[in-house]
Amino acid sequence: MSAEIVNPRSDRSDSGQDGDAHGELFDPAFALHRGGKMEIRATVPVRDRDDLSLAYTPGVAKVCSAIAEQPELVHDYTWKSQVVAVVTDGSAVLGLGDIGPEASLPVMEGKAILFKQFGGVDAVPIALDCRGVDELVDTVARLAPSFGGINLEDISAPRCFEIERRLQERVDIPVFHDDQHGTAVVTLAALRNAARLTGRELGDLRTVISGAGAAGVAIARILVEAGIGDVAVCDRKGIVSRDREDLTDVKRELAGFTNRSGLSGSLETALDGADVFIGVSGGTVPESAVATMADNALIFAMANPTPEIHPDVAHKYAAVVATGRSDYPNQINNVLAFPGIFAGAFQVRATRITEGMKLAAAEALAAVVADELSAECVIPSPFDPRVAPAVTAAVALAARKDGVARR
Amino acid sequence: MSAEIVNPRSDRSDSGQDGDAHGELFDPAFALHRGGKMEIRATVPVRDRDDLSLAYTPGVAKVCSAIAEQPELVHDYTWKSQVVAVVTDGSAVLGLGDIGPEASLPVMEGKAILFKQFGGVDAVPIALDCRGVDELVDTVARLAPSFGGINLEDISAPRCFEIERRLQERVDIPVFHDDQHGTAVVTLAALRNAARLTGRELGDLRTVISGAGAAGVAIARILVEAGIGDVAVCDRKGIVSRDREDLTDVKRELAGFTNRSGLSGSLETALDGADVFIGVSGGTVPESAVATMADNALIFAMANPTPEIHPDVAHKYAAVVATGRSDYPNQINNVLAFPGIFAGAFQVRATRITEGMKLAAAEALAAVVADELSAECVIPSPFDPRVAPAVTAAVALAARKDGVARR
Repeated sequence: MSAEIVNPRSDRSDSGQDGDAHGELFDPAFALHRGGKMEIRATVPVRDRDDLSLAYTPGVAKVCSAIAEQPELVHDYTWKSQVVAVVTDGSAVLGLGDIGPEASLPVMEGKAILFKQFGGVDAVPIALDCRGVDELVDTVARLAPSFGGINLEDISAPRCFEIERRLQERVDIPVFHDDQHGTAVVTLAALRNAARLTGRELGDLRTVISGAGAAGVAIARILVEAGIGDVAVCDRKGIVSRDREDLTDVKRELAGFTNRSGLSGSLETALDGADVFIGVSGGTVPESAVATMADNALIFAMANPTPEIHPDVAHKYAAVVATGRSDYPNQINNVLAFPGIFAGAFQVRATRITEGMKLAAAEALAAVVADELSAECVIPSPFDPRVAPAVTAAVALAARKDGVARR
Repeated sequence: MSAEIVNPRSDRSDSGQDGDAHGELFDPAFALHRGGKMEIRATVPVRDRDDLSLAYTPGVAKVCSAIAEQPELVHDYTWKSQVVAVVTDGSAVLGLGDIGPEASLPVMEGKAILFKQFGGVDAVPIALDCRGVDELVDTVARLAPSFGGINLEDISAPRCFEIERRLQERVDIPVFHDDQHGTAVVTLAALRNAARLTGRELGDLRTVISGAGAAGVAIARILVEAGIGDVAVCDRKGIVSRDREDLTDVKRELAGFTNRSGLSGSLETALDGADVFIGVSGGTVPESAVATMADNALIFAMANPTPEIHPDVAHKYAAVVATGRSDYPNQINNVLAFPGIFAGAFQVRATRITEGMKLAAAEALAAVVADELSAECVIPSPFDPRVAPAVTAAVALAARKDGVARR
């Protein structure tokens, strides 16, 4: 009976000429990507006329009519409430910069399969050919009926802040810019555990963030919300402080709730006596500056592939070292957060992702390794099977507490 | 390791309260639709750090860079070339009318799983919250980088004609309004076989089409292209003829290439002596009018669920009777066309779907049952496993012939 007779994928795998032309066939990453990394599957049978008459016409008509009468039934009778759109415009892809929508697709597909693998959440790559903030917001808002959530990805700063805010005002499903909040949640989780391990309170940690892009701004925000009073953020020109006149709107806002000690000057100035370094910038911090940090420093040098402070250098001065790399301990990896955050939001059909839900995710993530804390383990492995269920449950609960759950 | 720990679907299946509230649990269509009908699956492993470093960072970066340098590689290294967006605005859903994007989703999901089941083509439901033609065209054009083709669905006439045309001018992937062309292809295939069975040439058939919406217009077009010179199309006001002053642009165009005999008046007038009736209108044709058709008439009464001419009545006057229903022989069902048409277009990475590709699809579809023709079998069953491969091969070949193949 019918079945999948025609398979464009296998057809494609045979050709391989483009690959040969520039040698990808010898590279396992290219070999793995050939034909893409994902597919659609039916979850109901379509074997015969009876199946067809239920899954499609005429049976489907009464399901449509029921949703037309009671719009909330769309959550029960379609995949809407379990599928997230992974949306980008390709303007800030990994460290590659503005490579456009098509070239960003392999990342979006990768993200989509991580959503499924780690959170049981379906996800669809949506790489958009448009750049204006208005266009992007309009386009994604129009897509909203088909999805239960929007994961924004690899959209350049500072546009990303306005896009996320305006989009969330327009739609009744969660909008989550992972480069901001995913990173922020995992960083906070690791910092919580690193503080505990070294016997300090979050409130006592003087923290320096290098980088005032999407991740830096979101980390600053969540750290302040979590009770770290003294956070200084540095951009390329130094400490973001109220006396600077070159600040964008976002950085001016940042200056308003960070840098409590009123520092001004360079990253080096900020690092003098600081307890925590968080790098989300690229660039390199000179060892001489690292040496001026407080004893038992906590160094999270997350730039990829080259950490701002090499782990070998960091270990000379720090009690805990974390990076963005999988080949060192304590990898700050967003995959620890986004699958569970969306799974939790979807479980209760949340209308948005609140600050409370993010804080709860960070706490739950930190708690996973609470009983096995060590300098090499302040954050779980991405493959720790306890992670997603813990984050999911915490996020769902927080959504209810914050009044954004629909069930 | 990890795996799908959290499953929003199973979570949803447990609740079932909304279902109970209005009795769906007793209806197999509602039971089948609970939680939706589809999911995403990874086609590459994500079991450990090594897998992750190939499918996601850092391995994915070089694939992105390669596409940024050679844009055509997106077809090789992502799922783009095997995935179609099933796009609607919910303005003309089945016979239900303008029920909006959310309520149309069950149909779009159904369509998506038929694409996969019958053509091996991945498909994503995209129900858009926008109505203006400009907005719709802009939005779908912006989505184009992520997809290999656009299947427009259940968009009201006459907007659908302009939307399809303008969209195809904007993007370099096939745009196909299935309510038009899918129906037209299957109708032509059935008509070819019915003519052969009754010993007539296509060119000799005087044909009447009842309905000048999406399907009626497209059927008229393909029949004229296939060589049926005498086609009269009727709308609610009668025969679409050059002397009418109430015609929309599309109907004026229609009047220009149909109604060669210059008839004017009612559907009944048109039917007098006609060889073929094609109903895509709803409404009912009085038996007295059917009785005036030529001997051995061919009656395709495709309105669903109530054919314009009941098969029992049609059989009194016709040599071949077809309907849109699965419980009578000769079901004119679009699923015979769209999966193979997109599979064929994708196989050669066609930039559009030409008239030649549609005609080739109809010929191939008709040929599947050429050796077993009977009055009860002028068109294959949707579950005939020969259909999709035959249509796919014919469409791919025609794309090459028409110069729209990229490989």
